Amino acid sequence: MTHVTAREPATGFGRFFLPGPTEVRPEVLAAQARAMIGHRGSAIQELIAEIEPGLQRIFGTCRPVYVSSSSATGLMEAAIRCCSRERVLSLVNGAFSARFREIASSHGRTVETLEVPWGRGHTADLLDTALGRSSYDAVTVVHSETSTGVLNPVAELAEAVHRRDDVLLLVDSVTGVGGMSVEADGWQLDFVLTGSQKALALPPGLAFGVAQEAAVRRAETIPNRGTYFDILAFEAGLAKRQTPNTPAISLLYALRTQLARIEAETPAMRYRRHADMAARVWQWVEEMDDRGVGLSMLAPEGYRSPTVSCICLPDGRTGPEVTARLKDRGFTIAPGYGQLKDTTIRIGHMGDHTVAELDELLHHLEGVLAP
Amino acid sequence: MTHVTAREPATGFGRFFLPGPTEVRPEVLAAQARAMIGHRGSAIQELIAEIEPGLQRIFGTCRPVYVSSSSATGLMEAAIRCCSRERVLSLVNGAFSARFREIASSHGRTVETLEVPWGRGHTADLLDTALGRSSYDAVTVVHSETSTGVLNPVAELAEAVHRRDDVLLLVDSVTGVGGMSVEADGWQLDFVLTGSQKALALPPGLAFGVAQEAAVRRAETIPNRGTYFDILAFEAGLAKRQTPNTPAISLLYALRTQLARIEAETPAMRYRRHADMAARVWQWVEEMDDRGVGLSMLAPEGYRSPTVSCICLPDGRTGPEVTARLKDRGFTIAPGYGQLKDTTIRIGHMGDHTVAELDELLHHLEGVLAP
Repeated sequence: MTHVTAREPATGFGRFFLPGPTEVRPEVLAAQARAMIGHRGSAIQELIAEIEPGLQRIFGTCRPVYVSSSSATGLMEAAIRCCSRERVLSLVNGAFSARFREIASSHGRTVETLEVPWGRGHTADLLDTALGRSSYDAVTVVHSETSTGVLNPVAELAEAVHRRDDVLLLVDSVTGVGGMSVEADGWQLDFVLTGSQKALALPPGLAFGVAQEAAVRRAETIPNRGTYFDILAFEAGLAKRQTPNTPAISLLYALRTQLARIEAETPAMRYRRHADMAARVWQWVEEMDDRGVGLSMLAPEGYRSPTVSCICLPDGRTGPEVTARLKDRGFTIAPGYGQLKDTTIRIGHMGDHTVAELDELLHHLEGVLAP
Repeated sequence: MTHVTAREPATGFGRFFLPGPTEVRPEVLAAQARAMIGHRGSAIQELIAEIEPGLQRIFGTCRPVYVSSSSATGLMEAAIRCCSRERVLSLVNGAFSARFREIASSHGRTVETLEVPWGRGHTADLLDTALGRSSYDAVTVVHSETSTGVLNPVAELAEAVHRRDDVLLLVDSVTGVGGMSVEADGWQLDFVLTGSQKALALPPGLAFGVAQEAAVRRAETIPNRGTYFDILAFEAGLAKRQTPNTPAISLLYALRTQLARIEAETPAMRYRRHADMAARVWQWVEEMDDRGVGLSMLAPEGYRSPTVSCICLPDGRTGPEVTARLKDRGFTIAPGYGQLKDTTIRIGHMGDHTVAELDELLHHLEGVLAP
């Protein structure tokens, strides 16, 4: 039985702040309950025609946006299988960038690592130096590191990569796309992907990706790309407004509904709301620290994600303990990830949450941390 | 606007007879609208604990049942990547068995084909002869060929395979599992998989698979298995009652509800209902032929699937024309697949359909074919 407080919000929404899956609006959940359609006829083509412009807008692209019935890990696999040949440089500064590296290894690529401490961001300078030391055909990076709340400057990193010949930048923007401006074309992100259950505030089960022409040309030269995550199959499918494999139809219904909601809010206002939520957390952490509670942001200024904050706890408090006590008050956040589990907590302030709901959460978190 | 007939069923259910995706009961669709949960905590473990026994029962297995957030093609890929080494023999007698062969090729395997005409079934004798001609490490076969309505005798084929040393049988039972008895353990199917949107009557987006010990041991020796479809990752995840990748939570809710429905009907009665529906179609085709309409079943007796029927049309009628006219009456079936598109129609009599609903469909199909 969830503990009910006097300040419980009127709706059931606004108490679930994991850094994914995020809370999904009831009307988006309800959209999943529509009846099935065939997935090789005009009905699916109409559905894809309806969702494509909204997806292109949030990816900042004129290219087709792949819709994969998988989690984002599947499209990380697509990026590696189709867009890397032999030698991959993996930029690592957290658990998910380490996972991208492991996916490259699991496909037999030779992988080298450029690692900065968890909590720090990568810089174009360091990347440029690393690229000068050896030759690579692809670089992997995570845009917004969900394990640390660090935002990597992917536009600058892309510039550094493209000063070299024939190197592709593969970007995991799982907690980026939908929560902040992403310009797949303008920033020349050769492959960029996200998942449905983060800043897009959809149920998990879909992943989205965009490949630039250079990535598609690369794929054409790579043998044994497999079938399910072959980006050439996605390209061919979308040319007919179909998916290469059977799509998760109910999740597409939810996507259509949510894209209409995003359009109504406008992407610009959505990103502004995320920036406001992040700024609110930073300010709160500073206030709490001023009051002697001993909180600090893990990520330095200038490298903080608008969608997820990783907060260092004072001595004597642990991530699992703080999140459990907050759970007793009816609110869900996450402890730190992996090596940061005990020393940090993470708030996912993304998707359809608002500053007002976040204030409610922070009020209760304050009650747990500074009783 | 759908044409409404005097015989329209009282509910909206019972007019959508594609051989997948199948119609999904409203209460199963509605189950998808529950709120999200974290997928690394106790909530997901409880959910997996709830669904595992039902899945094991329909697969006829004591082994863990993998739940993949993908279409069945994804687990076909898992079978090839993890369970074949170099040389694959693909049994082909339709579009989906040809696809299994192409998936093997797309992973760089050397593939040979044992093909019988579309509409015929494979036999253990022919397979035994083929296995004697060369050496293979894996054999692929489709249990129920959705493109032809042919049921292959996978238990007998498995026996033939296992008379050879170190050969694994990889079985696509996409329109098998849930619509007929499948005994993954008893028949020694080394890897057997299905998708959610066929005889299980769920929305698409999930695939299920079972690997025998021999397949798991094989996987341990295969390098570069990738990440998303690595069966060792599924094994490790299920040991903790988790999925290796973010699961499609709303589809798991639908699965839980549907497994409870299957349990209530009992699997035995579910298979009986499918057998009855198939027999009803065969009888109807015979009656129509006796009346001079010139219909026949593509698959010979003894090789007919209980879940999907492929019916040869008389001269002058085509699959697209017949299905379009039936659509005008509010009923959906499929034309033939690929090379059979013009000469056949296909009825998916699986999932939650009943003989009474099928009779309704056949009544209208009769109106279209013998007006």
